[in-house]
Amino acid sequence: MPPGTYMEKNKIPDIVVARLPRYLQVLQHMQQEKHLTTNSKELGDRLGISAAQIRKDLSQFGEFGKQGTGYSVPFLINTLQSILNVTTAWNMVVVGAGDLGHALARYQGFTNRGFQVSMVFDNDPKIIGKQIGPFIVQDSAEMVEKVRAAGIQVAMLTVPASSAQKVAEELVKSGVKAILSYAPIVLNLPAYVQVQYIDPILQLQHMTYYL
Amino acid sequence: MPPGTYMEKNKIPDIVVARLPRYLQVLQHMQQEKHLTTNSKELGDRLGISAAQIRKDLSQFGEFGKQGTGYSVPFLINTLQSILNVTTAWNMVVVGAGDLGHALARYQGFTNRGFQVSMVFDNDPKIIGKQIGPFIVQDSAEMVEKVRAAGIQVAMLTVPASSAQKVAEELVKSGVKAILSYAPIVLNLPAYVQVQYIDPILQLQHMTYYL
Repeated sequence: MPPGTYMEKNKIPDIVVARLPRYLQVLQHMQQEKHLTTNSKELGDRLGISAAQIRKDLSQFGEFGKQGTGYSVPFLINTLQSILNVTTAWNMVVVGAGDLGHALARYQGFTNRGFQVSMVFDNDPKIIGKQIGPFIVQDSAEMVEKVRAAGIQVAMLTVPASSAQKVAEELVKSGVKAILSYAPIVLNLPAYVQVQYIDPILQLQHMTYYL
Repeated sequence: MPPGTYMEKNKIPDIVVARLPRYLQVLQHMQQEKHLTTNSKELGDRLGISAAQIRKDLSQFGEFGKQGTGYSVPFLINTLQSILNVTTAWNMVVVGAGDLGHALARYQGFTNRGFQVSMVFDNDPKIIGKQIGPFIVQDSAEMVEKVRAAGIQVAMLTVPASSAQKVAEELVKSGVKAILSYAPIVLNLPAYVQVQYIDPILQLQHMTYYL
């Protein structure tokens, strides 16, 4: 099966899907370093993953490399971008314009990795109307209407835990299908909505277990 | 084996350890909601994890609940805090006082979850000396000495990808043993140093695969 023609994407285990963005990240660094080819051992060394695991993961999507010659870096980048649906940039909405929303709205690192912030909302009258980087913070009372009109499907949620569930439900009403939440609570949303969480404390506690 | 007397912590699979902070997070929310007891089904429903998995995970550390009566929320919180080494607060250093470092230095959510920021460093003369929340940004040229003197073991790294490896090595020289890195590169450090990464784009790409 040639790459890109996979038909039944839900049959790929999610744990494999979760590793693909890491492969893409490392390959894009290799490209910046002018590497034209790589192999599963080099990728594995950079990622702390076994070469066998990398070969097995990539083989789920087709035949990428040739025995002995390895992988073409640009070809593998293109293929992973296509698999992950990031060949063009997704517009994103940031909800919650506190310190973290501020940082995300101004973050330069989304460029070339498939995303761009296009709207920022908050419900605080003291913050609405303020400029953050290239954005004017909009009133979250108008969020459902504006996000729906813009056809935005991806959101970053940086509101307090106490309002995260309510705002997430509004985002789903707006047509959002993927939410990256920084609020430290588990959201309860329809199964078709993708949700991922970032809570630095979970990762800090994971490490202190070993200290 | 009673809880807290586990001797060979490295025998617990890391994938189980990674779930324990999520259990603690949900239990602390339950405590805020004045729940005194819970059970594996309720925990599972909140976390999207099967009740059987939760029972199995917790049984690795001893007998927490009684058949039929479930778990005591405060007891389970205390036990998990003890297992994860977060009964008291770890001092942390933030390196990189850009937008994100700013947000982390002012973040209120560390309180009661086992961490507190105690120093902030940057190498930019325009930023050194500035006030961020209760901190004065210090010169990273003095970082190794000051972090070592304070005995700080946990760091959050929010410097650009291009300097992350160098700064991480300096942190290790300072005695830091756990690094949460926001730089989108894989760090190459001694095996005894715990490293975790936060890169929102990896999680966004994981979701767009399914869109």
